[in-house]
Amino acid sequence: MIQAKAYANHSPTDLLKPFVINRRSPKPNDIVIEIAYCGICHSDIHTARGEWGPTAYPFVPGHEIVGKVIEVGKKVKRFKRGDLAGVGCFVDSCGKCANCKSNEQQFCDHTAFTYNSTELDKVTPTYGGYSSHITIKDQYAYKIKKGLPLDRVAPLLCAGITTYSPLKRFKTKKGSKVGVVGLGGLGHMAVKIAKAMGAEVTVFSTSPGKEQDAKKLGAKNFILTSNPDNFVPYEGKLDLIIDTVSAQHDFSLYMSTLKKAGTHVLVGASPEPNHVEAMALIFGRKSLTGSLIGGLKETQEMLDFCAKKKVLADIELVPASRINEAYDRTVRGQVKYRFVIDAKTL
Amino acid sequence: MIQAKAYANHSPTDLLKPFVINRRSPKPNDIVIEIAYCGICHSDIHTARGEWGPTAYPFVPGHEIVGKVIEVGKKVKRFKRGDLAGVGCFVDSCGKCANCKSNEQQFCDHTAFTYNSTELDKVTPTYGGYSSHITIKDQYAYKIKKGLPLDRVAPLLCAGITTYSPLKRFKTKKGSKVGVVGLGGLGHMAVKIAKAMGAEVTVFSTSPGKEQDAKKLGAKNFILTSNPDNFVPYEGKLDLIIDTVSAQHDFSLYMSTLKKAGTHVLVGASPEPNHVEAMALIFGRKSLTGSLIGGLKETQEMLDFCAKKKVLADIELVPASRINEAYDRTVRGQVKYRFVIDAKTL
Repeated sequence: MIQAKAYANHSPTDLLKPFVINRRSPKPNDIVIEIAYCGICHSDIHTARGEWGPTAYPFVPGHEIVGKVIEVGKKVKRFKRGDLAGVGCFVDSCGKCANCKSNEQQFCDHTAFTYNSTELDKVTPTYGGYSSHITIKDQYAYKIKKGLPLDRVAPLLCAGITTYSPLKRFKTKKGSKVGVVGLGGLGHMAVKIAKAMGAEVTVFSTSPGKEQDAKKLGAKNFILTSNPDNFVPYEGKLDLIIDTVSAQHDFSLYMSTLKKAGTHVLVGASPEPNHVEAMALIFGRKSLTGSLIGGLKETQEMLDFCAKKKVLADIELVPASRINEAYDRTVRGQVKYRFVIDAKTL
Repeated sequence: MIQAKAYANHSPTDLLKPFVINRRSPKPNDIVIEIAYCGICHSDIHTARGEWGPTAYPFVPGHEIVGKVIEVGKKVKRFKRGDLAGVGCFVDSCGKCANCKSNEQQFCDHTAFTYNSTELDKVTPTYGGYSSHITIKDQYAYKIKKGLPLDRVAPLLCAGITTYSPLKRFKTKKGSKVGVVGLGGLGHMAVKIAKAMGAEVTVFSTSPGKEQDAKKLGAKNFILTSNPDNFVPYEGKLDLIIDTVSAQHDFSLYMSTLKKAGTHVLVGASPEPNHVEAMALIFGRKSLTGSLIGGLKETQEMLDFCAKKKVLADIELVPASRINEAYDRTVRGQVKYRFVIDAKTL
């Protein structure tokens, strides 16, 4: 058993505080990672606060994890001591179902998510990356290339794959016209990845102040969404929209900017139902769909792509003592664009 | 000029009455069709009553047209006198744009729809199939095989292609599991065509009385939608849903019956926006999309498929004098499943 330092909360209204958890000693196929950095994802906050259904407390958040391999089980071939490794939103899955076999482990009925879940035994709770160490089956960890600023790699494990997966699925390439709704943690990654794939990017935002930022990140166009007239010049122009907004909004207006057979992909989830007009889908045969992180193979592919293209998150590094402040600022949208916890400070 | 008998109305509140229209004498690429039958589509009623934006009066509805070719222009090769021909929802398009070139004339920016539209000159009004004759470019008419009950073929020109197109697009085949929402004119065609493609069909309806009818038409399962519990046994079971309902409804519940990556296709359009939950799309990576009739090539393919598989509409044949009564009964859902006008009675 490995005693690990962590941060946890114990009820929906509780702040996160220092906490000690046990990580298992490595089995033959496990690796132990000494965590260097962990990103703060909005999902961490929703779950900590019990906003997405029941949360199992004590709750240790974090699924944007990077660090160094310090122990390897005797059957492990993919990693050796001293390698860099990442952990994303899940740490295990059944490995046998059609979803696992097609490398879409995120849709397995038995996925062990990185936090607020259990290991495959359905009993042992999983604890996230706001901790000093994690033990994980080597097949569920990702290889991270050396020589990159590791703190800026961490957010790729959720924000990166969440936006990369639909961009890839809809074959984004040089010349593609991609819209990105919302310029937060997910949105800024969507802009960078789409741009790196060769797309011309249009950002939709409610904040006029974000125009300059959007363009600095690589966007060509900016639509201020508070005035519906601003959509008109973009009618029928886009191939794909990546919608990262998790507040209720009417999709129809955004879909007017899609070309025939274009697709509007939701990666942000508002808890309330959203509006959509049937005519916005029927004329132009457009689609509205969703996307949920990515499987093992695609996540590794994304990490390799980002390493090659030098795509990294824009972050604000914080010590563990400032996690609760970072939560409040994330909820208010006051971060450019992702808080990352320095695990040395836990 | 050919004087044709027709039925028209002159304002949104007006009943349809006998009216005389002029059809052009055939140009070198035209054919003249003596109309035998014309289906009554719900769109006819919406347009006659001005419910879908402004209608140009006098208005002659009808876009489910079948009849006999009685004259051919001198350059026409596809038809000869005495052949059977059909006309669907459009009578012309630019022929030059990407949509026309990819045989999706329904999405051309200049499509001349069969009624409440104009010819390509943007001046000459188009009049629909509640009339004794129609003149049309031969390339925009469909070949109808002889030996079929022609009155039961008419509804294929709109209800048939509207449901065939998405069934085809999503590769419905033997063993596919297809849901059909609503059992009216469109719904009953969706059941028959899906079944003819080899699918197992599940009908969703608000009316308990329709269960027996659904099964008679070829459905295997029936979900009475008034009770959400009835959806539960079908969770994750369907590949595709064809949604023919044009009243407002929440799509999320229906989407729960889709498999991973399944698709819910709207072919009915409610005027009010509908609800959809982001989570219904994100978990299982499901899609919501729309479909609008079909292009020339696909419509001909559908007619040939239906002829081969003996798929015909279930209809109630009415004389022209009963058009207004048929409208009222269609709105009340009191028809199994399509009224067809006998054009001899105009």
